[in-house]
Amino acid sequence: MHIKENRERTVPISRYADPSIPSGGLDTSIVAVVTDVQRDGAPVVGFGFSSIGRYGQAGLIRDRFSPRLLAGSRDDLSTEGGDTIDHFKAWACMMAGEKPGGHGVRCVAVGTLDMAIWDPAAKIAGLPLYRLIGEMTGRDATPGPVPVYASGGYIYPSDELAKLEEEIRQLLDHGFTHIKIKIGFSPLQEDLKRIETVLALLPNGGHLAVDAMYRYDRESGLAAAAALQPFGLRWFEDICDPLDFETLAAVANVYAPPIAAGEA
Amino acid sequence: MHIKENRERTVPISRYADPSIPSGGLDTSIVAVVTDVQRDGAPVVGFGFSSIGRYGQAGLIRDRFSPRLLAGSRDDLSTEGGDTIDHFKAWACMMAGEKPGGHGVRCVAVGTLDMAIWDPAAKIAGLPLYRLIGEMTGRDATPGPVPVYASGGYIYPSDELAKLEEEIRQLLDHGFTHIKIKIGFSPLQEDLKRIETVLALLPNGGHLAVDAMYRYDRESGLAAAAALQPFGLRWFEDICDPLDFETLAAVANVYAPPIAAGEA
Repeated sequence: MHIKENRERTVPISRYADPSIPSGGLDTSIVAVVTDVQRDGAPVVGFGFSSIGRYGQAGLIRDRFSPRLLAGSRDDLSTEGGDTIDHFKAWACMMAGEKPGGHGVRCVAVGTLDMAIWDPAAKIAGLPLYRLIGEMTGRDATPGPVPVYASGGYIYPSDELAKLEEEIRQLLDHGFTHIKIKIGFSPLQEDLKRIETVLALLPNGGHLAVDAMYRYDRESGLAAAAALQPFGLRWFEDICDPLDFETLAAVANVYAPPIAAGEA
Repeated sequence: MHIKENRERTVPISRYADPSIPSGGLDTSIVAVVTDVQRDGAPVVGFGFSSIGRYGQAGLIRDRFSPRLLAGSRDDLSTEGGDTIDHFKAWACMMAGEKPGGHGVRCVAVGTLDMAIWDPAAKIAGLPLYRLIGEMTGRDATPGPVPVYASGGYIYPSDELAKLEEEIRQLLDHGFTHIKIKIGFSPLQEDLKRIETVLALLPNGGHLAVDAMYRYDRESGLAAAAALQPFGLRWFEDICDPLDFETLAAVANVYAPPIAAGEA
């Protein structure tokens, strides 16, 4: 197979139900990858989108990664039999000529296309993607319950604890059993009160995760880790600058995560 | 002051005089920043370009960083008196809403605009930029000799040592006194022969730098560092994955660079 066309659009996203919290002009990229494979009289098309955590990557997708995929021959992109996409070959094709060190922004662009080329692989195989990946990796793909969390808990301009409690109640009413809230924007003692407010609505700490959005430095990250540790939270995310590996390792020493291998 | 218009173009670049070495489709971004300040009856315009080491960043400049500069008010961008650009404010304006972790690619886009807004600051001040920066930082800006190096020494498809020697002779004929060559694409013993070939044309190791373009892992990087150390080279650049801080620190322990503080 080869890829005939990539379509890409940038769409604005709004993350917050409460208009008092600004969404910051976030957007995301959506792509459609049109293959030359036909199923039921129509080309097999794969869809993908980039992170909803910040910005789309239209420029990098259009200028570098999509043209390389489109320039890829059948041999460059296909499995040995030629009938479906080989993702490792497609990845090598997209990254040809890239230097090490373009982390962060670049991986969002490549990841968007990567998602979109897994989709046609599953469609060509006639399998749900989880089953295809299970077969490819030799892992058990028996359907079973998957824990899903709702992410929220941004800081309200006023009346924080009451509004936070109301937000979490709404998420639970929607059927969510696991929650993630933001921390690190208030003094630690206030964040601890916010965590206690949410935990009062949940069975235990294993149902709550916290995300500091990289706000901590070494000292405040270690202080937060020590204070959070007794709650047995599900996880502690985006603690400090993502490249401050030393602080991350030090925090991990203080904050032993309760998730057993394979449970996440 | 404020910025009235940013113009941006992507231009292809060719790095190699020898057509047997592919340039890999490299391009770069050039920008012109048009301010509302007039000098001699015309607007003051600043120019910048991005790294010539890989790709332009048209998408990021157009989608995120240029619009933020253009949206910046006089207060957002100007020094207290309002008559010229405040680069720290302009940087904050460009990075508003960005997450930590977008290294590599993003800094090229911001750096291109950053270069282009230093230029009008110097023009508005009526000073060469080195003098303006000297005044701003309280450092000595007395003109004096500046060491300049020529970068080359890529691997030729054949007849490597003879062609390398010819290339370096041409650079010296152009008046360059310092040279940088690429290493890490051949076995270490061959790179050592290449280095010896170049050093035979130079006064001493302090006139030669080497750039491994991130090719080494920990083991090969440490081996190269030990082998290079006796040559007293000017520097050893881009050794391994740029985020492999542990290997970089280990290599620095083996390869004590001969450059004294301030000499580089």
